[in-house]
Amino acid sequence: MARTHNFSAGPAALPTDVLAQASEEMLDYEGSGMSVMEMSHRSKTFVGIAAQAEQDLRDLFAVSDDYHVLFLQGGATGQFAGIPLNLTQADDTIDFIDTGAWSKKAIKEAGKYCNVNVAASSSATNYDHIPAVADWQLSDGAKLLHVCSNETIGGVQFKDFPEHATLVADMSSDILSRPVNVDQFGLIYAGAQKNIGPAGLTVIMVRKDLCGSARSITPTFLDYAVQADADSMSNTPPTYSWYLAGLVFQWVKANGGLAGMAEKNQAKADLLYHAIDSSNFYSSPVAKADRSAMNVPFTLADDALDGEFLAQAEARGMFNLKGHRSVGGMRASIYNAVPLESVQALVTFMSEFENERG
Amino acid sequence: MARTHNFSAGPAALPTDVLAQASEEMLDYEGSGMSVMEMSHRSKTFVGIAAQAEQDLRDLFAVSDDYHVLFLQGGATGQFAGIPLNLTQADDTIDFIDTGAWSKKAIKEAGKYCNVNVAASSSATNYDHIPAVADWQLSDGAKLLHVCSNETIGGVQFKDFPEHATLVADMSSDILSRPVNVDQFGLIYAGAQKNIGPAGLTVIMVRKDLCGSARSITPTFLDYAVQADADSMSNTPPTYSWYLAGLVFQWVKANGGLAGMAEKNQAKADLLYHAIDSSNFYSSPVAKADRSAMNVPFTLADDALDGEFLAQAEARGMFNLKGHRSVGGMRASIYNAVPLESVQALVTFMSEFENERG
Repeated sequence: MARTHNFSAGPAALPTDVLAQASEEMLDYEGSGMSVMEMSHRSKTFVGIAAQAEQDLRDLFAVSDDYHVLFLQGGATGQFAGIPLNLTQADDTIDFIDTGAWSKKAIKEAGKYCNVNVAASSSATNYDHIPAVADWQLSDGAKLLHVCSNETIGGVQFKDFPEHATLVADMSSDILSRPVNVDQFGLIYAGAQKNIGPAGLTVIMVRKDLCGSARSITPTFLDYAVQADADSMSNTPPTYSWYLAGLVFQWVKANGGLAGMAEKNQAKADLLYHAIDSSNFYSSPVAKADRSAMNVPFTLADDALDGEFLAQAEARGMFNLKGHRSVGGMRASIYNAVPLESVQALVTFMSEFENERG
Repeated sequence: MARTHNFSAGPAALPTDVLAQASEEMLDYEGSGMSVMEMSHRSKTFVGIAAQAEQDLRDLFAVSDDYHVLFLQGGATGQFAGIPLNLTQADDTIDFIDTGAWSKKAIKEAGKYCNVNVAASSSATNYDHIPAVADWQLSDGAKLLHVCSNETIGGVQFKDFPEHATLVADMSSDILSRPVNVDQFGLIYAGAQKNIGPAGLTVIMVRKDLCGSARSITPTFLDYAVQADADSMSNTPPTYSWYLAGLVFQWVKANGGLAGMAEKNQAKADLLYHAIDSSNFYSSPVAKADRSAMNVPFTLADDALDGEFLAQAEARGMFNLKGHRSVGGMRASIYNAVPLESVQALVTFMSEFENERG
């Protein structure tokens, strides 16, 4: 089994142990004689799998009983609509901090359903930093303040979060990567396909008091109160993805929990940023204080060498390093499941490539 | 490996060969060194998997270029909202034929977005038949006519479909089970979790000329025109479920295509209905002409024996036979992936149980 170094931005690397267990259990889950994906979501076995996954996620984040934990479909993009539909009325306003491509998409979609106020934006400098809190122009009486905790494309990440009555965070690309105080948020949401599991699952942690006033035009499967009442099974949930998410939660628990993840992730990020900063050939477009520990964009001094860099990287088993077209250059996504060894292999190669062609 | 006889109504049995291949490829898809679920949806490998799955589905149904084939999230329940949002305006009317629990849910959700006219209903007799076409009270100028081709709970199934300008069918529980002339429909939709693959994927075949007028309140990820333009990747699709659907499409092709499926399914259904009809102990609540070849509800002469029947069935490796609470008794779901041997085992047991306790 030759597993590659997978630097994909998402869907992304998953823990090899998790995949091995899933492979093993594919035809016969714990002597049931069937795959988890063949089980009724109402079956005792699957209800147990689902409840355990929720409990493990609650344990990891110490989520209080004041919050629903939901396992839905539609990705973060679905929630760009789901959040205004559930938590605002048409004349309400959401304040947004615009830190990149994903913030922008959330703003555009919310604008279909309510007023939006871009309280701060770093778009003028191609999203190379997080605007300072002191400069945010929050509107009076806004219902929500929305941030994207980590911008997958631009590679900026909130290191801490502002105090706010109802803070909403898209954590798609850094959930489970570090401890977060859920009580600081009204709602946290994340598409699964970076740190949780397969694409097609959306995890939501939402304060219970915010639910129950969804607009009449809300598709029922996106209604938080309806789904909470039904343990996220108002309609058939993505059962197999939920099961895999549960295996990932157990893997996180067994590997030091969120603090353990944070420590390993920081070590990987430090190694890679150090390699970039100590070179005259590679550079990072992102302000140091706001650099993501998950997605590391970097450029080569001569972009004519990009193709050769990528080809040589692939020849050494390193994949998905091409940067997003809006940023250019390279991007290494180093989520929870990307081992330190992969980052070591990358920095070794970067150094050799620089020596040879720099 | 002891695989059980799995009569689950959904999520449901999948072909053992498909699961074995998925298990085999879990850690390393065709030498890529990664699982399909770890691949970017933009990667050449996954785009190839996705395109092949679409082509195989098009081949199976001989879908013409007049139709988009979409792979979305949200299940059939998501489309109960998606269809009126995409294909109607607020003052339009959808005619519905109400043949059971799933029709009813579709009607209720559509009523949030447009006018609904229940043109015919069998609810007065607990959904034991399909209302005769001659009795349908279609409204003048209705935009769509909606049918549920197979009611999973009640076990009634349309054997053929009426001519109509814009017929829409929920085929969640019988898609791929028999040939269907797609040209007869404006839109066909199906949650994957019965005959296609894992829950969390929705397959839609929609006539292109119907798309492009989604209402402004449509969540973007449910917008057919947007998704068609993006090859169903406007947001990250449920990649692993899509891949598994592709494996199932190939399995259907290799096993006689839709005609082959229909023949095997009819043989299974005939065997089971014959066992029911030739007994004084078991009975079917459904009118003979409308009986489903996918979901077979039946009752015991004495419902006090239901628990014992289920326990003995499980002891013989037959699972998920308990009927839906709204119908009572038993229900055997015998989708494509349930082999004839499972139905043979069931009728043998039914006969023995009747001899012993009837």
